[in-house]
Amino acid sequence: MTAILTRNSYGKSAVRLLKVVRNGGYHEIRELTVDVMLQGAFAAAHVEGDNSVVLPTDTMKNTVYAKARELSLGEPEEFGMMLAAHFLDASAAAASSSITLKEHGWRRLVVGGAPHDHAFERASSELRTAVVTQARGAAPVVVAGIEDLLVLKSGRSAFSGYPRDRYTTLRETEDRVLATSMTATWRYAPGTTAFGRLFAAARSNLLEAFAHHDSKSVQHTLYAMAEAVIDRVPEVESIRIVMPNKHHLLVDLSPLGLDNANEVFVPTAEPYGLIEATVERATPVRD
Amino acid sequence: MTAILTRNSYGKSAVRLLKVVRNGGYHEIRELTVDVMLQGAFAAAHVEGDNSVVLPTDTMKNTVYAKARELSLGEPEEFGMMLAAHFLDASAAAASSSITLKEHGWRRLVVGGAPHDHAFERASSELRTAVVTQARGAAPVVVAGIEDLLVLKSGRSAFSGYPRDRYTTLRETEDRVLATSMTATWRYAPGTTAFGRLFAAARSNLLEAFAHHDSKSVQHTLYAMAEAVIDRVPEVESIRIVMPNKHHLLVDLSPLGLDNANEVFVPTAEPYGLIEATVERATPVRD
Amino acid sequence: MTAILTRNSYGKSAVRLLKVVRNGGYHEIRELTVDVMLQGAFAAAHVEGDNSVVLPTDTMKNTVYAKARELSLGEPEEFGMMLAAHFLDASAAAASSSITLKEHGWRRLVVGGAPHDHAFERASSELRTAVVTQARGAAPVVVAGIEDLLVLKSGRSAFSGYPRDRYTTLRETEDRVLATSMTATWRYAPGTTAFGRLFAAARSNLLEAFAHHDSKSVQHTLYAMAEAVIDRVPEVESIRIVMPNKHHLLVDLSPLGLDNANEVFVPTAEPYGLIEATVERATPVRD
Amino acid sequence: MTAILTRNSYGKSAVRLLKVVRNGGYHEIRELTVDVMLQGAFAAAHVEGDNSVVLPTDTMKNTVYAKARELSLGEPEEFGMMLAAHFLDASAAAASSSITLKEHGWRRLVVGGAPHDHAFERASSELRTAVVTQARGAAPVVVAGIEDLLVLKSGRSAFSGYPRDRYTTLRETEDRVLATSMTATWRYAPGTTAFGRLFAAARSNLLEAFAHHDSKSVQHTLYAMAEAVIDRVPEVESIRIVMPNKHHLLVDLSPLGLDNANEVFVPTAEPYGLIEATVERATPVRD
Repeated sequence: MTAILTRNSYGKSAVRLLKVVRNGGYHEIRELTVDVMLQGAFAAAHVEGDNSVVLPTDTMKNTVYAKARELSLGEPEEFGMMLAAHFLDASAAAASSSITLKEHGWRRLVVGGAPHDHAFERASSELRTAVVTQARGAAPVVVAGIEDLLVLKSGRSAFSGYPRDRYTTLRETEDRVLATSMTATWRYAPGTTAFGRLFAAARSNLLEAFAHHDSKSVQHTLYAMAEAVIDRVPEVESIRIVMPNKHHLLVDLSPLGLDNANEVFVPTAEPYGLIEATVERATPVRD
Repeated sequence: MTAILTRNSYGKSAVRLLKVVRNGGYHEIRELTVDVMLQGAFAAAHVEGDNSVVLPTDTMKNTVYAKARELSLGEPEEFGMMLAAHFLDASAAAASSSITLKEHGWRRLVVGGAPHDHAFERASSELRTAVVTQARGAAPVVVAGIEDLLVLKSGRSAFSGYPRDRYTTLRETEDRVLATSMTATWRYAPGTTAFGRLFAAARSNLLEAFAHHDSKSVQHTLYAMAEAVIDRVPEVESIRIVMPNKHHLLVDLSPLGLDNANEVFVPTAEPYGLIEATVERATPVRD
Repeated sequence: MTAILTRNSYGKSAVRLLKVVRNGGYHEIRELTVDVMLQGAFAAAHVEGDNSVVLPTDTMKNTVYAKARELSLGEPEEFGMMLAAHFLDASAAAASSSITLKEHGWRRLVVGGAPHDHAFERASSELRTAVVTQARGAAPVVVAGIEDLLVLKSGRSAFSGYPRDRYTTLRETEDRVLATSMTATWRYAPGTTAFGRLFAAARSNLLEAFAHHDSKSVQHTLYAMAEAVIDRVPEVESIRIVMPNKHHLLVDLSPLGLDNANEVFVPTAEPYGLIEATVERATPVRD
Repeated sequence: MTAILTRNSYGKSAVRLLKVVRNGGYHEIRELTVDVMLQGAFAAAHVEGDNSVVLPTDTMKNTVYAKARELSLGEPEEFGMMLAAHFLDASAAAASSSITLKEHGWRRLVVGGAPHDHAFERASSELRTAVVTQARGAAPVVVAGIEDLLVLKSGRSAFSGYPRDRYTTLRETEDRVLATSMTATWRYAPGTTAFGRLFAAARSNLLEAFAHHDSKSVQHTLYAMAEAVIDRVPEVESIRIVMPNKHHLLVDLSPLGLDNANEVFVPTAEPYGLIEATVERATPVRD
């Protein structure tokens, strides 16, 4: 036999749920999309078609809904930890489980100057994310994050001093628009619990660094943002940031007899620069 | 000859622009996507390939950028009125022009408790829209609107009392989640000018009616929202609202031995109900 | 009372179905997405929240599935005609019904040189469409069409001879790439029945005209395509074509010391030209 | 200093190009989307804002177009190998380069029974992919693949014999619809060159195995497909397949008094099962 099954995983993706908690007429809502993945001893299913070890993905889906009913949702990380542990119990063949959660934000509608009891609007396209991975017999690893946070700065952003070759036509600039749809994920030290507060702290440090930074490049700003989180949120062991450079091109109006003093730009979708980096704490608690 | 050209139009779509206005280090930004369309005597281009009457769509694009540079953008409706008039001048063959503008909202980042000078985040997926249509020799018709405003109410929403036939399985409910991605467009009376203030007034009346309404159906709430705008914003002559019913299905947990007292729902993307209506002022200034 | 409900409609959108017809081990499949819309005397629902006239959209969905089970699907137009008539019967308040169908094509997999009995691949992103509209007491109006048919010609396409103004920078060309994602819809004469054959005839005439045309502009080619259908498919009374000009820009390699003799292009997504026209038969059987 | 930059990479994504090769009036076209990524000693850029090591992503884009002009495109893998080597030369700081290519298929239009000289239609949504990764001083690693190949089988697909717990409601079935949007990537042995022929061989073996397999589960079929490639394409060292289970749910028509003998299904988008596995050759030439 020449073929050998190596890595494999399976699960259910895009299990969507809205939970409504009612305190009389005052409601709280939380919307999550949940993915469940298992890795382990599933070779018999692949090679022989033996399903006796395959917890159905339909059962995974049902379980997510049942657990959402039985328990308070709490923070996404908490719901993920509970599910990660459950699925190791539910599947003897699984060596590890991984739960990915994406929270879609809802903001209370303000009506007549006051927040409404039970009416909401979608906050933004930004998602709060959490990934909980648990190997059997080990502590869960919790990674929190933000996805698709669209930010732009119209000042204090430059790009110059780069090398040139025969294919270089880009002009150096000391004043450009810097825009990105940021994705950041950061890993907490084992035993971390204050997930709501820490998410808020990481998010505000990322945004403050983005706003205040005197940017020489996307790389430069990305690193400053990561460093801010490492410096000021001690529970974070490492952070990875991915920032597409959503180029805003200055329109060349000179053929039309007009100048354009950094006023009118074309936002472009493609091509785009793509910058990624991981920054770790020098003396992490683990890893 | 058996074929006759009847309606036809052409133009440039998806002209994207970001304008940065600098007051020293304090910046204001506005992002728009603009479509230009012309209708008129373009049969020679179609039938004979005679381009002498075809203002190139590339020129339309250049014009949008040049005008964004030359003039203050102001409200989207104002920029649209200027462009609609310009393109009638620029194309003798055009009988009418239509400018569609979509504004992508940016919100100033709040850093250390204070709004930042030149850093912004995308406000939400909601778009502010404007369509200006002008026939040669006539006044422009201005239609303002909102697109993709995602709202949800978890209380005071029912659906019951409907007819049943052999294909009906739906259960009546006095308490359901009502969610929609609203699109609304409203036409202003000729001569209207306070576009910024009126947009805010229409938007807040729509949301207040949505939040406060004791909903018997999507139709019922849609009408209440439209009526609120007609009643309280006298400059609006008519309003059209489109509301997909983004169904949130109560999960049936009874096979798992659990109840579900309107707590856990599945947000679904398809199929969806689709409700549309136009509500007009009884004695409009004009039609 | 100042507000008056004028046009309104409601229904169910995006009802997806796959029908499998089994002739022993030899299967045929058809995948459709169906929208149902009703117009009529629904003011009581809007204004008073009276649902006694509102056939639930959930019932519409159930009906589509039940009818797909009870009857041979046949051509999409036939299924649409049956549904349009059914919903006028099912809703006394409806003055007219409209059924929109989109067929997602599946092509039999060819395995070992032979078409497979029950394995299929998605044919392309092109959709076959049909819209059947029926007013109570009148004959159905049947409009067939194609959506998102992506075609490109790299020869015999020019754009020159257009007017220039101070905003014009475009260069004239006698040799450009012409690409579009065509949407076409055509209305059949009353009593038309051979929907499968006529769809194939309209489609092949559209594509043949696109391929063979000596194009002076998108308008010119669009008209030639429409005219071909009117000339050669006598059952078609009128046709509307929408063609975005998916610009392929010749890359300017001269700053890099290279020429580019119409060889390397950038396909762009935005902005795009947008050309629309309706062509009718000179002496139609009806309008 | 507590923060340490570990992994990082940057580059240009979504560089789109269409190359037209003209043999007189007979044209051949190839459309690619190219991503360029570099990894290496870029810490100075991140930490200090030193751009002297940062080859601009705009230069990467220009280079892709210039190389597309200078050289025959050939197979995507060949273009990728050339680019991977070039960017190691162009960036002294880079330790490795990675080029990702996605080919969008175009099929010659058949007009009057004959393939047309210069008119094309989009073949399908399926993409042919290639990823070439090269570490400085090492041979390139070439991974070819297919993305978004939508296939469905309506026979010989079962799912039964799985474990049940208190959250299980799924019914066992010996006859279901199996549909997926397959993504497969396979690594070639060093020195492989016949990329066009091997892509065709891998693709046809994947599809033949999908069609002929007596499926006990998605896992079972995925493995059979991977095994077929390993068995019959000796140049392939390993293959990874990702198959979302695009569930087609049998509509329960019993409340409407109808049976449904595996005839009418609802195609659903979410949630979906997700199955992934890597299968390797037992005695690979290398790892």
